[in-house]
Amino acid sequence: MNDPSTEPIKNIENLLDQKQQAHTEDLLEWLRIASVSSDPQATDRVREAGRWVENRFQAAGLEVQWIETQGHPMVYAETPAVPGAPVALVYGHYDVQPPEPLDHWITPPFQPDIRDGNIYARGATDDKGQVLTHIQAVLRLLETGQPLPLQVKFLIEGEEEVGSENLERMLPELADRLACDVIVISDSSQFAEGQPAITYGLRGIATFELTVQGPQQDLHSGSFGGAVRNPGVALCQLIASMIDDSGRIQLDGFYDDVLPLSEEEREQFAALPFSEADFARSLGVDALAGEEGYTALERKWARPTLDVNGLTCGHQGPGVKTIIPAVASAKLSCRLVPNQDPEKIADALERHVAAHCPEGVRASVERDHGAPGLVASLDSPYVAAAKTALGAAFGKPPVMIREGGSIPIVQKFQETLGADCLLLGWGLADDNAHSPNEKFCLADYHRGIKASAHLWRELGKLKPEQS
Amino acid sequence: MNDPSTEPIKNIENLLDQKQQAHTEDLLEWLRIASVSSDPQATDRVREAGRWVENRFQAAGLEVQWIETQGHPMVYAETPAVPGAPVALVYGHYDVQPPEPLDHWITPPFQPDIRDGNIYARGATDDKGQVLTHIQAVLRLLETGQPLPLQVKFLIEGEEEVGSENLERMLPELADRLACDVIVISDSSQFAEGQPAITYGLRGIATFELTVQGPQQDLHSGSFGGAVRNPGVALCQLIASMIDDSGRIQLDGFYDDVLPLSEEEREQFAALPFSEADFARSLGVDALAGEEGYTALERKWARPTLDVNGLTCGHQGPGVKTIIPAVASAKLSCRLVPNQDPEKIADALERHVAAHCPEGVRASVERDHGAPGLVASLDSPYVAAAKTALGAAFGKPPVMIREGGSIPIVQKFQETLGADCLLLGWGLADDNAHSPNEKFCLADYHRGIKASAHLWRELGKLKPEQS
Repeated sequence: MNDPSTEPIKNIENLLDQKQQAHTEDLLEWLRIASVSSDPQATDRVREAGRWVENRFQAAGLEVQWIETQGHPMVYAETPAVPGAPVALVYGHYDVQPPEPLDHWITPPFQPDIRDGNIYARGATDDKGQVLTHIQAVLRLLETGQPLPLQVKFLIEGEEEVGSENLERMLPELADRLACDVIVISDSSQFAEGQPAITYGLRGIATFELTVQGPQQDLHSGSFGGAVRNPGVALCQLIASMIDDSGRIQLDGFYDDVLPLSEEEREQFAALPFSEADFARSLGVDALAGEEGYTALERKWARPTLDVNGLTCGHQGPGVKTIIPAVASAKLSCRLVPNQDPEKIADALERHVAAHCPEGVRASVERDHGAPGLVASLDSPYVAAAKTALGAAFGKPPVMIREGGSIPIVQKFQETLGADCLLLGWGLADDNAHSPNEKFCLADYHRGIKASAHLWRELGKLKPEQS
Repeated sequence: MNDPSTEPIKNIENLLDQKQQAHTEDLLEWLRIASVSSDPQATDRVREAGRWVENRFQAAGLEVQWIETQGHPMVYAETPAVPGAPVALVYGHYDVQPPEPLDHWITPPFQPDIRDGNIYARGATDDKGQVLTHIQAVLRLLETGQPLPLQVKFLIEGEEEVGSENLERMLPELADRLACDVIVISDSSQFAEGQPAITYGLRGIATFELTVQGPQQDLHSGSFGGAVRNPGVALCQLIASMIDDSGRIQLDGFYDDVLPLSEEEREQFAALPFSEADFARSLGVDALAGEEGYTALERKWARPTLDVNGLTCGHQGPGVKTIIPAVASAKLSCRLVPNQDPEKIADALERHVAAHCPEGVRASVERDHGAPGLVASLDSPYVAAAKTALGAAFGKPPVMIREGGSIPIVQKFQETLGADCLLLGWGLADDNAHSPNEKFCLADYHRGIKASAHLWRELGKLKPEQS
């Protein structure tokens, strides 16, 4: 009475159900490694997190390569080639954001805790939990003894949270090894709880440190105040000059290259079940804000931004210290939309600062990493395969969305490898990525593993595209 | 061949010269006690610094009282009453500013180091070194066995750097004990190296913490950026809105009560040997800045200010963390001039923040301490006595100046005790009070001790004023 065409997939679904506990324990183990790539003190732990995933691949008999870089290493692995079937590349990262502020965590960021069906830990959703779904699915499929219907390659890096600069630099030399027909990345979110999504657009990014230097050292604000430019005030004035009251960014030429939203996209966004009031409430703010003339979804998915990520100046401890601080600095980042060039934006910021820096202080801009945004075609057979796989695992067809975050390397992959990219997010918008109490829903983790298993099956039915 | 009227003073000058080494060692000892009054961890060390001076007075046989407060204690001491002669009250403080940033100190702040004739340590000039001059002078005069020509009272407190609130509160109950004809305070500077000064005006102060609260926690700047008000940007916009391009403070009514400078004072300031270019160079800035229409001396002595003392927001460690920070805060202080009321200024700041806070964040102002500014009469016999004393010790008549800093308690003393105040600064403008590498010139320390001895002699010649 069995339908022979669905039997293997039922078998693997059953196997995945049986292995849920083991899959959870694997994730807990990986999350305990505090692989904060931006922290120079954490180098060993970052490597340890890389070794953890390398060991997984090795134990399963994949061909594995440990790739040293000028920074943190990458782990590459591949299943056997399958002639006539497409090649898929899974990209993910084992590094995580800094956990600060520590006192806002209910449980410590690197002691993962399960509460209400969620795993709480730094990296739970971004990206260890999500990338691990693909690893588990492939390793379990191999365990069944059946060959995979396609070749799956993995590249798991350790510098995504600091801009993937070494991967970007090494991409040309890695291109042959990474050659593929489709790239699969799970480092984003479902549209809402239980509503899976395929993400077809990402914003780019450009980050900076703006420093305003005043007197050679802190000065007594009584003896000197009024006669010396205050770098803290000057920094505030510079930043205030960058955004007007309607939320428009005032850097010259900032919007010149922006790819506008099509009417079709605006209608599609507007049709999604999304309440701005609920969204505001979920963030604990009285009202949303942003660029005039755009909805919240448009603002966060398809409009560029300029944000303060941090301010540092003068006395910050308890009590009063009446000084004119010698120096003030801000960490700034712009989210960019397709067609905006991070270098041109950095140039515009530098020109703005030079033009607006008041007398009596010196302002300088240090450029950090940059990456352009992207939008992908919705008409590929890979997207169709992903729709089927997600629908099967989540019991609901996915919606097509964009995402405000940046995966700097995606654009480079598309350029260098000439492959389409599937962004399949298993996370939720309230997973607190980059925030205290980051979490990942365990049910989504297990659904993600199933969706991944379905995906390999669906992709395996396709013929590789002629390039 | 001796002139009998000058013999006692020559004797004491000789004695003070002989004791220079001991005086220096005393100061080194006191400076080793890290009495940072704003640091809740330093309570014991603050008390220890109070005990140190209490012990000095006790050893010299003064009547001493250890006065507990709700915060740090005060030390009171007095020499015997001298009927028919005035009573002088020396006020000073044994607490110090926080030493941060520590890595800017050439030698550690609480390991005093003598280099090029200066003692480098936190508190060297503000105020341990300066107040100690009066203590040394009085104790040496008593050592000669001769009675002092007047009664000298000392009140050395431990909360000057945090606003003297407990002293202010207790002043009415202490008024009888502190009753005096003239108050002597050395917590300011000479006009220039070798040019002594009597300070007849001080600025007041009002300090605040401005906090801007956005989302309930840090958010991923990609997933949320553009749709949520950034508290760091909002803080910068709020602060920028407080000062215009010509350096005028934009709080409603801020200048209403300002006592304008008289033409005479402006002429007097202009006649002082002061180079704005040299001043800028000494601070390491390309240009001075400030309110249009005023000279640097006018700006720092007699015009009100609004300064950022510190900014705290989001990510401040190494590297990039792309967040919308949940909260941003600024430590702000206004220096006020005579007639401005700190409470009215705080009200104006609160109203400004309420009126300018953008949607999507909540801003709040916490008031810290406040004190009005003051100007004193130049026509008193005490000023004349001080001119003589300073002229004798420094070999040059003093100039009459104002000072931009605040000694919050001075105005309260004048009100409660009905006594004139002599502000006799032995420090130098480049002593780095409130900054790293605070110092005090040893020669000025010893000259200050001599000037103090001359002062008691000159004041002892006067009859107490009828009140």
